[in-house]
Amino acid sequence: MQIAKVRGTVVSTHKTPSMTGVKLLLVQFIDEEGQLLPNYEVAADIVGSGVGEWVLVSRGSAARIETRYEDRPLDATIVGIIDTVSVDNRSLYSKRETERFT
Amino acid sequence: MQIAKVRGTVVSTHKTPSMTGVKLLLVQFIDEEGQLLPNYEVAADIVGSGVGEWVLVSRGSAARIETRYEDRPLDATIVGIIDTVSVDNRSLYSKRETERFT
Amino acid sequence: MQIAKVRGTVVSTHKTPSMTGVKLLLVQFIDEEGQLLPNYEVAADIVGSGVGEWVLVSRGSAARIETRYEDRPLDATIVGIIDTVSVDNRSLYSKRETERFT
Amino acid sequence: MQIAKVRGTVVSTHKTPSMTGVKLLLVQFIDEEGQLLPNYEVAADIVGSGVGEWVLVSRGSAARIETRYEDRPLDATIVGIIDTVSVDNRSLYSKRETERFT
Amino acid sequence: MQIAKVRGTVVSTHKTPSMTGVKLLLVQFIDEEGQLLPNYEVAADIVGSGVGEWVLVSRGSAARIETRYEDRPLDATIVGIIDTVSVDNRSLYSKRETERFT
Repeated sequence: MQIAKVRGTVVSTHKTPSMTGVKLLLVQFIDEEGQLLPNYEVAADIVGSGVGEWVLVSRGSAARIETRYEDRPLDATIVGIIDTVSVDNRSLYSKRETERFT
Repeated sequence: MQIAKVRGTVVSTHKTPSMTGVKLLLVQFIDEEGQLLPNYEVAADIVGSGVGEWVLVSRGSAARIETRYEDRPLDATIVGIIDTVSVDNRSLYSKRETERFT
Repeated sequence: MQIAKVRGTVVSTHKTPSMTGVKLLLVQFIDEEGQLLPNYEVAADIVGSGVGEWVLVSRGSAARIETRYEDRPLDATIVGIIDTVSVDNRSLYSKRETERFT
Repeated sequence: MQIAKVRGTVVSTHKTPSMTGVKLLLVQFIDEEGQLLPNYEVAADIVGSGVGEWVLVSRGSAARIETRYEDRPLDATIVGIIDTVSVDNRSLYSKRETERFT
Repeated sequence: MQIAKVRGTVVSTHKTPSMTGVKLLLVQFIDEEGQLLPNYEVAADIVGSGVGEWVLVSRGSAARIETRYEDRPLDATIVGIIDTVSVDNRSLYSKRETERFT
């Protein structure tokens, strides 16, 4: 999975019927030092993420594993909202700390 | 999924029979600031896209999820025409605004 | 799918039995301006392509969709010979024109 | 598979139910000379890896092959802890030597 | 498939049981001019490759097509030892010539 930050939303009304009811978020990937990378995905949100949160994104056929998503043409899905990321026993990210200061 | 702009068409008459009847469009990927990237895909169009529109492209096995497309050797499919993309609560793209000025 | 130009052939006699009878071509990817990229694939040819032709290459599980190819360990297959590519209503490639001048 | 070094942990409490009980590690890829690359993955750990160890990471649908993992939306899994890597008959990495000096 | 040169071996004793008995080789990718690229894979060897040989590597779900490998978490497998690669009707590689001079 990749770590990404929710940046925005994508709306498509004229789409294949199997995409109906899928909430699509624009998520931008984050490098191992916590910086935004230029790469992004439009991912289906199945956990209720909000703009600014760090999330876990599964790509490929993993994006269609969940019940009710097997038959939708998805290749990226948000599968969790991240609480903490620690690298070499130091905190790289803490949702609680981030929210306190913003 | 990736955001891409429809740039053109690809025609292939000598092809594997399972590709018969598939409309192939050349789509070029767009970065998180709305600029064209050098990367492209030739994607099957199942939603009736037109040149200049921004579309959602699913890649990998997701491209063959739709009925009548399971047995075609596709690895990229246009699954929706994009109306709006917003990043950090600002509008990055609006199909309506784009069409008004072009 | 990607657009690629057939550049050459790869021969392997000592291989897994399921690869027997598969014609392997070296194809080099082409960018959106028609220039050769450094990236290539060794792809199974199921449409009778020749060196110099532009072809459509499907990758991933799409490469094993065709009957008689499901049980071969392929991750890239040539699924069509390209006649024309047009971008922004201009011709980027025409097989007929290319053959006339070469 | 890719060679990676375990760098840290990722915690997500608000996630899709099928991710419950999956231990998530941040692993950073290593190049062919043993140096850390900027690329990383958040991978499910099924072999009990620890921070600092070199591990084998399988990506894509391979990440869901193991029993009890087929129905989880994983696209990267640690499938082994590496003892030795040798390139051109020289040792690039030895878990035993690394642990002796650290 | 990609063309790669066998560079070395990877040993993992503490691994998921389904990886038991799989011979793992470090293979480094080769560009279209025959030069080594920085990219590599750790691939399962099912054809008896040796260090220094050029091989064909299949990635993704293709790596698990062969009988006895369907249930192992592999994402890269060596499926053939390359005899010759020719580009634009010139020889880029010949196993016989390479072995004669080394």
